[in-house]
Amino acid sequence: MDAKKPGLRHNQISEEIIEQVERQLAKPPSLWLNLTGAKILENEGQDTKDIVLPNNRSQVTHIAVDIGGSLAKLLYYVRDTSSPSSSSSEISDEVSDRGGRLSFVKFETSKIDECLQFMKQLIQDHARESRRKPITVMATGGGAYKFYDRMSKELDVEVSREDEMECLIVGLNYFVSCIPQEVFVLNTETYEMAFQETRHDSKYPHMLVNIGSGVSILKVTGPSQFERIGGSSLGGGTLWGLLSLLTQASSFDEMLELSKKGDNAAVDMLVGDIYGKNVGYERFGMKDSMIASSFGKVFRENKKSDEFLPEDIARSLLLAVSNNIGQIAYLHAQKHNVKNIYFGGSFIRNHVQTMHTLTYAIKFWSNQTMNAYFLRHEGYLGVFGAFLKYAISESNVPVPPIS
Amino acid sequence: MDAKKPGLRHNQISEEIIEQVERQLAKPPSLWLNLTGAKILENEGQDTKDIVLPNNRSQVTHIAVDIGGSLAKLLYYVRDTSSPSSSSSEISDEVSDRGGRLSFVKFETSKIDECLQFMKQLIQDHARESRRKPITVMATGGGAYKFYDRMSKELDVEVSREDEMECLIVGLNYFVSCIPQEVFVLNTETYEMAFQETRHDSKYPHMLVNIGSGVSILKVTGPSQFERIGGSSLGGGTLWGLLSLLTQASSFDEMLELSKKGDNAAVDMLVGDIYGKNVGYERFGMKDSMIASSFGKVFRENKKSDEFLPEDIARSLLLAVSNNIGQIAYLHAQKHNVKNIYFGGSFIRNHVQTMHTLTYAIKFWSNQTMNAYFLRHEGYLGVFGAFLKYAISESNVPVPPIS
Repeated sequence: MDAKKPGLRHNQISEEIIEQVERQLAKPPSLWLNLTGAKILENEGQDTKDIVLPNNRSQVTHIAVDIGGSLAKLLYYVRDTSSPSSSSSEISDEVSDRGGRLSFVKFETSKIDECLQFMKQLIQDHARESRRKPITVMATGGGAYKFYDRMSKELDVEVSREDEMECLIVGLNYFVSCIPQEVFVLNTETYEMAFQETRHDSKYPHMLVNIGSGVSILKVTGPSQFERIGGSSLGGGTLWGLLSLLTQASSFDEMLELSKKGDNAAVDMLVGDIYGKNVGYERFGMKDSMIASSFGKVFRENKKSDEFLPEDIARSLLLAVSNNIGQIAYLHAQKHNVKNIYFGGSFIRNHVQTMHTLTYAIKFWSNQTMNAYFLRHEGYLGVFGAFLKYAISESNVPVPPIS
Repeated sequence: MDAKKPGLRHNQISEEIIEQVERQLAKPPSLWLNLTGAKILENEGQDTKDIVLPNNRSQVTHIAVDIGGSLAKLLYYVRDTSSPSSSSSEISDEVSDRGGRLSFVKFETSKIDECLQFMKQLIQDHARESRRKPITVMATGGGAYKFYDRMSKELDVEVSREDEMECLIVGLNYFVSCIPQEVFVLNTETYEMAFQETRHDSKYPHMLVNIGSGVSILKVTGPSQFERIGGSSLGGGTLWGLLSLLTQASSFDEMLELSKKGDNAAVDMLVGDIYGKNVGYERFGMKDSMIASSFGKVFRENKKSDEFLPEDIARSLLLAVSNNIGQIAYLHAQKHNVKNIYFGGSFIRNHVQTMHTLTYAIKFWSNQTMNAYFLRHEGYLGVFGAFLKYAISESNVPVPPIS
């Protein structure tokens, strides 16, 4: 619109415009986030790839945070800064044809101050740009409760607490349905990944195994119908905790790097170690390379930790935790008659050995009848869901909607 | 019989007798071991209690060994030495009214030489006593294959290899049916044990979860009908191996003692640690004292192992392994529609905390519909089964038989 009407002073005009915009913002537009044409921006950090939304026209006035036991994940929207109008008011946003991007970042929950500082900065930048509707923080995960008072006080904005499980399911649904090249399977022979057509496998029922510090297993029977059917305390926190006691690795990624170089047979007791090689236990479906007892060789060797290689210990523990999660996931899937299992959570970190072990376990136990799916943003299901739940109502969902 | 017949020289007589005895021994008597009136001898070592067989009249000319990945268990029969005829020949055995006892002993598999030395001694004592039928060694467990050649050569006796799973089932059946005060349940509120009437719960189907270095799960549908339906590599070897790396404990029992003094909340991430106290996650059936992530506090505290108490680490790991086994056992029991679960294997060692955790897990997951049973000789199922399988045939079973 042209603000330069004769007979009206400029400051009056801009005030009218602002009032008009703020009236519009009072109730979110029915199309409030356009995901059509969404595209993962390649060549970025492995698990913090931005997602470009070229067709989004609506302004975004919220950020989302998912504060788990070990990690806090943050998601915010950035307008395309190559737009000349990018630093002007909402009005120019309304007509911008550049879209924007979703940015993902994570912090260790033990360093929650850094996370809050980052959020404060986002909120200040947002406010500085123009006289906009104030930011809303969509918060989920246990920390949304534990740190609710701190966030409300220190950020001085509205904090909306969203249910952790609901957010996981909303996030999964939109990742599967609306983000191309997000979901993939791993070939257990070739170790190659193959992307899945969006939607093709979002059919119900399916199961989400979310592996963070601990493990939650959810059965999903519809876009917003789900049930927590199980879990396990043996998750990422167990691997990270034990490896921080048993190795010098100081980060999750160092631990995963270690495990790549290791040989678990140096610490695990294999079936062949108990029976000797090539004797008659195959009838129980056991190969002599099968792990009979994780860390089973350690005690009988009567050595101490410095006599075992950290990489072998890391490999063994990664296999133990991954195998165990795969087995428990399979048993729940079978109990609930589910064929398609999505694995999410920051435990996986797109680490090939972990995904291979999980896939192998599912294929092995299910006799090839079940499928294991992974997501490139596997650690961000909850925060993506919390972000998308902003203003969701029956008549007001992101585009395209989930059917 | 009276050997002093006129007209026969004594050495002739004794030769006749010996020939006669040896003819009898050529095929085992149809009643070859009488378990009626069997009684556990109290006030002995916790998991090596002898079993008295007051009514056994038949001679026993075999011993049994079960060589697992971590432990080798030995079982042998000792005639009641208070009998004046105890050191005389088989004939007086035939009419002895003193019975005898079953003796249990165990060795670390890594010290297999000690075990073989002990067996050699038993065999020599047996031979010295009289000119008897030579000893047969009934061997089971993986070591029956791995050490078969060594046993045959060094012991110079017949070694009969018996299937590991079959022996577990035979041993379980006879313990449950014929040994009073062997099987018990643990009350999760009072921590009291209550012995089960023999036979009362041997009805089929039931499940055996045998926890040695690793875990085997067997479904039992009849006296000798069973199927291995699952297992886990997270068993005793995992607990012992990791604790030998993380603590100074040098034996299984030291590790269990340590765990009694520990507080797992110092290393485990509880639901309350993630959400804060008393917020709305009860709807998912989670209490704030529930373990969300085993060892989940360790990494975020960024401490090293010497900053955590070994007793807390031991307690946490014992709970983690026991909970996990309990959950996997429950999932298999539910899948196969089994209500009664027997837990065996040397992992348990009649340790109350372990049995409590296993029982609690079964009751919790099954919503009180399943039962967890334990055995005082839990580590000796396999060796007891191997011992009893000696000469078992359709017409020739221990008394009383298992129906």
